[in-house]
Amino acid sequence: MVNYPNGVPYQGKEKKKERAHHKSAQEISISSANRGMDFEADINASNDYYESKGICLIKKRPTPINVVKVDYSRGAMITHAYFEAQSTTDYNGVYKGKYIDFEAKNTKNKASFPLSNITPHQINHLKQVIFHGGIAFFIVQFQTLDKVFLLDASYVINFYEHEKRKSIPFDCFEKNGIEVERSYIPRLKYIDAIDKMYF
Amino acid sequence: MVNYPNGVPYQGKEKKKERAHHKSAQEISISSANRGMDFEADINASNDYYESKGICLIKKRPTPINVVKVDYSRGAMITHAYFEAQSTTDYNGVYKGKYIDFEAKNTKNKASFPLSNITPHQINHLKQVIFHGGIAFFIVQFQTLDKVFLLDASYVINFYEHEKRKSIPFDCFEKNGIEVERSYIPRLKYIDAIDKMYF
Repeated sequence: MVNYPNGVPYQGKEKKKERAHHKSAQEISISSANRGMDFEADINASNDYYESKGICLIKKRPTPINVVKVDYSRGAMITHAYFEAQSTTDYNGVYKGKYIDFEAKNTKNKASFPLSNITPHQINHLKQVIFHGGIAFFIVQFQTLDKVFLLDASYVINFYEHEKRKSIPFDCFEKNGIEVERSYIPRLKYIDAIDKMYF
Repeated sequence: MVNYPNGVPYQGKEKKKERAHHKSAQEISISSANRGMDFEADINASNDYYESKGICLIKKRPTPINVVKVDYSRGAMITHAYFEAQSTTDYNGVYKGKYIDFEAKNTKNKASFPLSNITPHQINHLKQVIFHGGIAFFIVQFQTLDKVFLLDASYVINFYEHEKRKSIPFDCFEKNGIEVERSYIPRLKYIDAIDKMYF
């Protein structure tokens, strides 16, 4: 999941409704941003748990940053740099000897997952993972519905390349994906979903 | 796709000859540093080649950066940040369905590879990779000897944890490692070494 560098959250339909109830724009944008961040935090915490239990070793790739200027007189302090778009996916690692690679996305849409969230680089990357025998998928959180699904990357790639519509309907996730259950620890039991889908 | 940061080509034996002709200490340290950078550039270029030929998909992890301050009025320009130590290894990916994970190190030593180059985090990370059935190794360049070897991580971990001496002798690389050949393209044929060692 790409962190929006400027901290400005996506503002969809929910916002308009909430705004009717006298919340300040500031409050709404903070809580919306936090919920998006929470999803990433949930995955990271789940990865930490899985790692601590010796279940798998899956890590978030660091956000690539283009460093323009470093001040060595101040302990190699970076004074000028920019966030770069991740040209791959955000997570990869190893489970049961297999290479695992996935992208996590959050959407506030209720009816479908907009493909505009996915870059051509990511599609290309995931195609290569599949070609080389790795396991590739998306984990998508439908924030408003409080539902999380694992969907195989080949399904998403096929949809991306051959379907006219620019979003994957929610019921496709129900039919073709595996629902990822929440728990106290790990917060997202996505390894269970991997087991059901691939093992 | 990774761009070669400086575009400076690998400089082998010819360079050493030049250096005999009145180079200052400053120039030497810069060119030595460059050769260290060249090693990373060689691996990155080899990865690009392997990826373009559909041989494997192995990427350098971005350097983690701790962002302290971002100036949003200047297009999300990072104005205060620090490099963080990589808590894992620098490279991972997939080859023949298997998870691949390795660390690349350059040394100017002729007789041995100093283990001070390796962090406890990296040892711990590589142990976990092996535990989960991944392929884990080091690629070490003996810069002065112009030799590159692949050495299985389990050998290095064993040495790190059980041997008294704090460097791995060069002849251990010759006996237990696989020499990585150079070519014009790819610059480092390390997949051949993986084939010999693991497949």
